[in-house]
Amino acid sequence: MTDVFIKDCERVDDLHRNGYKIIQDPKRFCFGIDAVLLSGFATVKKGEKVLDMGTGTGIIPILLEAKTEGSHFTGIDIQPESVDMARRSVNLNNLSEKITIDECDIKEVLSKYEPNSFNVVTSNPPYMNDGGGLKNDYTPKAIARHEILCSLEDVVKGASGLLKNGGRFYMVHRPHRVADIICTLRQYRLEPKKMRFIHSYVDKEPSMVLIESVKNSKPWLNVMPPLIVYNKDGKYTDEINKIYYE
Amino acid sequence: MTDVFIKDCERVDDLHRNGYKIIQDPKRFCFGIDAVLLSGFATVKKGEKVLDMGTGTGIIPILLEAKTEGSHFTGIDIQPESVDMARRSVNLNNLSEKITIDECDIKEVLSKYEPNSFNVVTSNPPYMNDGGGLKNDYTPKAIARHEILCSLEDVVKGASGLLKNGGRFYMVHRPHRVADIICTLRQYRLEPKKMRFIHSYVDKEPSMVLIESVKNSKPWLNVMPPLIVYNKDGKYTDEINKIYYE
Repeated sequence: MTDVFIKDCERVDDLHRNGYKIIQDPKRFCFGIDAVLLSGFATVKKGEKVLDMGTGTGIIPILLEAKTEGSHFTGIDIQPESVDMARRSVNLNNLSEKITIDECDIKEVLSKYEPNSFNVVTSNPPYMNDGGGLKNDYTPKAIARHEILCSLEDVVKGASGLLKNGGRFYMVHRPHRVADIICTLRQYRLEPKKMRFIHSYVDKEPSMVLIESVKNSKPWLNVMPPLIVYNKDGKYTDEINKIYYE
Repeated sequence: MTDVFIKDCERVDDLHRNGYKIIQDPKRFCFGIDAVLLSGFATVKKGEKVLDMGTGTGIIPILLEAKTEGSHFTGIDIQPESVDMARRSVNLNNLSEKITIDECDIKEVLSKYEPNSFNVVTSNPPYMNDGGGLKNDYTPKAIARHEILCSLEDVVKGASGLLKNGGRFYMVHRPHRVADIICTLRQYRLEPKKMRFIHSYVDKEPSMVLIESVKNSKPWLNVMPPLIVYNKDGKYTDEINKIYYE
């Protein structure tokens, strides 16, 4: 393992995959189950080029590098501190040839990267469309959770512009935004093809939704079986354990 | 019970609710679990006026009359034989003051009924958007199942035009059409507010989806817990038994 500087405020967590580790700062933002489920949901084929928009700690490129045979992974984030920390995680795992972390505003991706050049785009974007009321709150957590610096439309527009024809966009989001998400995807010619709702328990409303859309594809949405996080006894279901540890 | 003519090809089934019965012709089209679940999903408040578009046997108005305190229920269908049969079911249950069955094309509802005059519209429309390939098949089953005589857009446009501001539209449909449904609803200012997927078993893909939309409402979609039809042992779940028999 490469020597990498770890700040006092940071911790290093084991990802239980390929021996990979990740640097996180609990005061800023730690990755959650949403990022893990998104990287379990996304399909990356051998040799494919992947971009993760709003990468934060870099968790999604690092997990996808571990799980798939993609040729290269790029993670972008607007916050310089996140970029610095994610780069150190990449170095810590000796992945600098496979993963690039760039400081980039999602609203600027189409001028920074070549349009129609990625096979796969992933994003775990800010969920809450109440950014207007929080616009003076530029704390890292607020920026990661609320649409302060980028809207759902910015994310979708960027993904669509960067994807090749037939390229796939994977997003995790909140179920209450599903109508916004579907209409915005279609507006940018990303056809929703696969959708899975995540329920903490089988009798509860879903807390998250995973959506695959395909650029310029024909309409036909495959809604998957519910993904249940906990059994009745409060322990992870077999499927969740598999996504985390297999 | 009123004397009502029953044809040789028809049968009379018990609805297990208020002693109501329904006339069906197995060679034409019998109501299914989709109609029962739609009438369990729809909310009709005291005194509200309800329209069911593509009523077939009249099952939805008859069940909603039994379950709710709505003031009046209208069912429309384009097929004269269905209209005749549904009217006889209404008479059989002595419901002619509460339920009206009209012969009407969904595409013509806005000239037949007063716009903005209904509190609730329901529909269990043709699911399959392959009507083009079947356009010479005018059998009753084909008309009920495929978009031959009316499209999803015709149904949504009619519902939106007939509903009052804040009125509710309830539809049961196929999950693979969810993107089409959501975008078409929004196009006609019906905001999707509640959505529930129906799964035969908890680990299977959903076979149906129930959607409530509200005219001119603000965006916020409540996705409900999955509705599971069968327990592992192949028997109806408690919730399905409740919808059928309570």
